[in-house]
Amino acid sequence: MNNLLALEGLAKADLEQLLEGAARFRRDVVDTPVKKSARLRGRACVNLFFEASTRTKTSFELAGKYLGADVINFQSRGSSVEKGETLYDTALNVEAMAADVLVVRHSASGVPAELQRHLDIPVVNAGDGHHEHPTQGLLDLKTVWDAKGHLDNLSVVIVGDILHSRVARSDLWGFLTMGSHVTLVGPPIMQPLGLVNERVRVTSDMDAAIQDADVVQVLRIQKERQAMVGMPSEEEYRERWGLTAARAGALRPDAVILHPGPQNRGVEIDSLVMDDPRAKILTQVRNGVAVRMAVLDQLIGGQDDN
Amino acid sequence: MNNLLALEGLAKADLEQLLEGAARFRRDVVDTPVKKSARLRGRACVNLFFEASTRTKTSFELAGKYLGADVINFQSRGSSVEKGETLYDTALNVEAMAADVLVVRHSASGVPAELQRHLDIPVVNAGDGHHEHPTQGLLDLKTVWDAKGHLDNLSVVIVGDILHSRVARSDLWGFLTMGSHVTLVGPPIMQPLGLVNERVRVTSDMDAAIQDADVVQVLRIQKERQAMVGMPSEEEYRERWGLTAARAGALRPDAVILHPGPQNRGVEIDSLVMDDPRAKILTQVRNGVAVRMAVLDQLIGGQDDN
Amino acid sequence: MNNLLALEGLAKADLEQLLEGAARFRRDVVDTPVKKSARLRGRACVNLFFEASTRTKTSFELAGKYLGADVINFQSRGSSVEKGETLYDTALNVEAMAADVLVVRHSASGVPAELQRHLDIPVVNAGDGHHEHPTQGLLDLKTVWDAKGHLDNLSVVIVGDILHSRVARSDLWGFLTMGSHVTLVGPPIMQPLGLVNERVRVTSDMDAAIQDADVVQVLRIQKERQAMVGMPSEEEYRERWGLTAARAGALRPDAVILHPGPQNRGVEIDSLVMDDPRAKILTQVRNGVAVRMAVLDQLIGGQDDN
Repeated sequence: MNNLLALEGLAKADLEQLLEGAARFRRDVVDTPVKKSARLRGRACVNLFFEASTRTKTSFELAGKYLGADVINFQSRGSSVEKGETLYDTALNVEAMAADVLVVRHSASGVPAELQRHLDIPVVNAGDGHHEHPTQGLLDLKTVWDAKGHLDNLSVVIVGDILHSRVARSDLWGFLTMGSHVTLVGPPIMQPLGLVNERVRVTSDMDAAIQDADVVQVLRIQKERQAMVGMPSEEEYRERWGLTAARAGALRPDAVILHPGPQNRGVEIDSLVMDDPRAKILTQVRNGVAVRMAVLDQLIGGQDDN
Repeated sequence: MNNLLALEGLAKADLEQLLEGAARFRRDVVDTPVKKSARLRGRACVNLFFEASTRTKTSFELAGKYLGADVINFQSRGSSVEKGETLYDTALNVEAMAADVLVVRHSASGVPAELQRHLDIPVVNAGDGHHEHPTQGLLDLKTVWDAKGHLDNLSVVIVGDILHSRVARSDLWGFLTMGSHVTLVGPPIMQPLGLVNERVRVTSDMDAAIQDADVVQVLRIQKERQAMVGMPSEEEYRERWGLTAARAGALRPDAVILHPGPQNRGVEIDSLVMDDPRAKILTQVRNGVAVRMAVLDQLIGGQDDN
Repeated sequence: MNNLLALEGLAKADLEQLLEGAARFRRDVVDTPVKKSARLRGRACVNLFFEASTRTKTSFELAGKYLGADVINFQSRGSSVEKGETLYDTALNVEAMAADVLVVRHSASGVPAELQRHLDIPVVNAGDGHHEHPTQGLLDLKTVWDAKGHLDNLSVVIVGDILHSRVARSDLWGFLTMGSHVTLVGPPIMQPLGLVNERVRVTSDMDAAIQDADVVQVLRIQKERQAMVGMPSEEEYRERWGLTAARAGALRPDAVILHPGPQNRGVEIDSLVMDDPRAKILTQVRNGVAVRMAVLDQLIGGQDDN
C-alpha cells in the first residue's frame, strides 16, 4: 500500500491488515497509560487541511504523536491556496521540507489523488468532497468488527444524504469488500445515482430497511443543505429517517448503531439513542485514533519497537 | 486531588503540595538548560480554549512539554461549539481519543465544572467567566511565598474590578486559605456583593488600603467595560486606583507588587512601577509555568524520574 | 554569534560556519529516514509571527523538531500586539516562560532588532518589513554553493522589486560577503536608492544583465503593489523582467535559477522555467530547513550527539 486515497479498490487483505494493525495499536498504545511508541520517531507527518475539521485533524495529530512522529499542522490561509496550481506548489514545498506523509482534507473530490500524482511521499485522504473518507470507513469497520466478531454477511444500513456523503461511500466499499451487504436509505433526492451491485439496495423506507439490520450508520444531516429546493425540513426528516427512540426500540437487540459525528441531536438521531448501549459513537472516535495509527505506520513505519 | 476547578474549597495542605511541586519543577526543570522531564511521557494534554488567551495557553503548552507530554491545542471554531450540548460532545470526543487531561477556558462561569461532571479524565480550569482562574491564583501565591518566605498573616491588597475578576476570586481564596488577610479595593461599582469573612475587607480608599500592604495585586482594567454607565474614565481610574509611581513610593520597602498581565501601562499601573524591583511581574509569568507543571503532574503524573 | 538579525555585517567566517552546519544537518538529519537529533532536546523555540507566512513558519518548526526541541507557535491576535509596547511585553513574557530563542516575523523593519535590545535570549529575524530575511539569504547561498562548489566571484543577478524586497537585501549582503558580485535588475520605480558598492550594479535591462549570469534570483511580484501609480502591469512586467522560457534559453547552461516562492507562474517566472533542471526551487526549500537548523543550533545548541 503506497497511499490511502479511497477504500474503493482496496483488497480484503489490505483492509484486514489495517484492521489488525489498528487492533494491535489500540491494545498496545491507545489503551495504555503511556501512549508512546517509537515506530515513527523521526518521521514528519503534515496535516494539510483545506477544510475545517478539528476532530479529524486532532485524531490524526494524536495518532502521529502516539507513534512518536513529529506532527505539523500546515495552515492554509483561505483562497490563495484553494487554486489548484498553488495547492500543488504548496504540497511540493512541504515534501521538499522532508515531510514523510501528507494528510489532506479538501472540499473538492479528487484533490488528494491529484496531489499524489505529483508527489513521491504518500498521501492520506482525510476526506475529499463527496468522494471518500477512508479512515472513517476503516474506523466504522473496526467498531463493527469488535462488536460482532466478524464482518461476513452482515446487513449494514446507511441512512441519510447518501448522494453527498463521503462517509457513506467509504463505508459502502469497506463493508462490501469485507463480505457484507449494504442498504442505502434516505429521501429520494438524497439517493445515489447509478450504483449497481447485487449486494447494494437503495430505498427510502427507513422502517423496512432497519428491521433486520446488524448495523445502522446514521449520517449527519448538513443543515446548510436543508434550505435547498425539494429537501425535507428537519421535522420531516426526523419523522421519516431519524433514528428516533421509537425506531431504536424496533432494532435487533444485537444491532450496532453508528454515527460519524458531530451529531444533530433530535434531528437524525435522538439524544436517548446516543446513550443506548448499542450505540458505539465514542468507540468509533477511539478506534479512529487506532486506525489512523495503523495507516500511518503502514505507509511510513519501519523501526522495530512497540 | 482529582481536578482543579477552583481554589475555593481546597485545603491548605493541597495548596502547599502544589506550591512545593512548583518549586521543585522550577528548580529541576524550568531553570535548567535542558527543560525536559519524562514524568508525563506518553500522556496527552488537550487545551480546549473557547476564549482567546495566548499567554495562558502557551504557558500550559510549555508546562506539558517540559514534562514530556504531548500537548494538543483543540481549536474551537466560533459559535457551533459555544452551545452547551455540543461543547459537551466535543469534550467527550477528546476524552475518547485517549486524552489524559482537559485544560478548559471559557467565557462562562462554571463550564469546566459542568464538563467535569460528564468526564472521567481530570479537568483543569484555565479561567471561566467571572468565577476563578486557579492556576493564576497559585502562581501569585508562589511568587509571594518566594519573596516573603511564607504566606502567614500577610496583608494582601487586590485592586481593580473585583466584581468581574476571576483572578481576584482565586487570589482571595488562595491567600485566605494560606492564612493571610485580604483587602479588596476598587470603585464602588466594581466591588463584590456579599463577601463576608472576618479576614476580608472591602474599601474604595486606595491610599489607606495600601499603606501597610505586604502585597498589592493590581488587576487589569477591561477597557471594553469602561464604556458602561457609572464607570470611571481611564483618567479618573488612574487618579484614584492606579498604582502610580507616587503611590508606589508610599508602599513599604518590602512590599510585593503583582499584576496578572497584560498591563495597560499608564492606566492601572505606571510603566515606572513595572520596573520597580518590588514588582514581580515576570517572576509571576515564570512561576506560572512551574505551577501548571505541578498541577498537571499531580493530576496525571505517575512515572518516576526527574 | 548571539542572534541572527541580518546578513549585513556578518563576517565571511560566520556565514561559512552556518553553511557548513547546514550541510552537516542536511546530510546527517534532513536526508535520512529518522530525522531526529537530540542537540536541542529540552530547548524551547518560540515562533512569534506577526505576519502570515506558513512556509517559513513551518520550516522553522520542522528545523526545531528535527533537532529535538519543543516548538511553540505563539499566536498574535491582530492589532492589540501590533503596538510596540505590547509587542515588547509579549516578548518579555515568552522569555519569562523559559523560551530559549524567539523567531520573529513582522511587517515593520527593525522589530526583531528592537526586541533583541530588551531580551537576554537570542532573536532570529524571520523577515522584517523591507529590511532583511537572513535565513532566506543563507538558503540561497547554500543552494548556489552546492550547485557551483564555491561562492567566489560569481555573477549574481537579482530581478524584481528590489526596493521593497527583504530577500534581495539579505541575498545582496550574503553574496557580497562571500566574494561574489551582484546585479540588481528591475523597473526603475523598483530600484534601490543609494546603494553604493563597486561590486553592485543596478540596471533595468534584464536581457543584458542575465547574459553571463552564474545565478539568477527571481523575486516574487507582490500583486497588491501592481495597482500603484507608475507600476508596470503584469503583462508589461513579464515582457521586460519575467524569466520567460525564451530568456531562460539565453542563460548559460550552468546557470542557477532561484525563486524564494511562492511563485506567480506566468508573471515573474514561466511554469516551463520552474521545471528547468537549472531551477533549484525545491532544493532551496529543503536547504531552508537545514540552514534554520544550523542557525538554531549555533544560537542555543550545546549537547553532544548526532
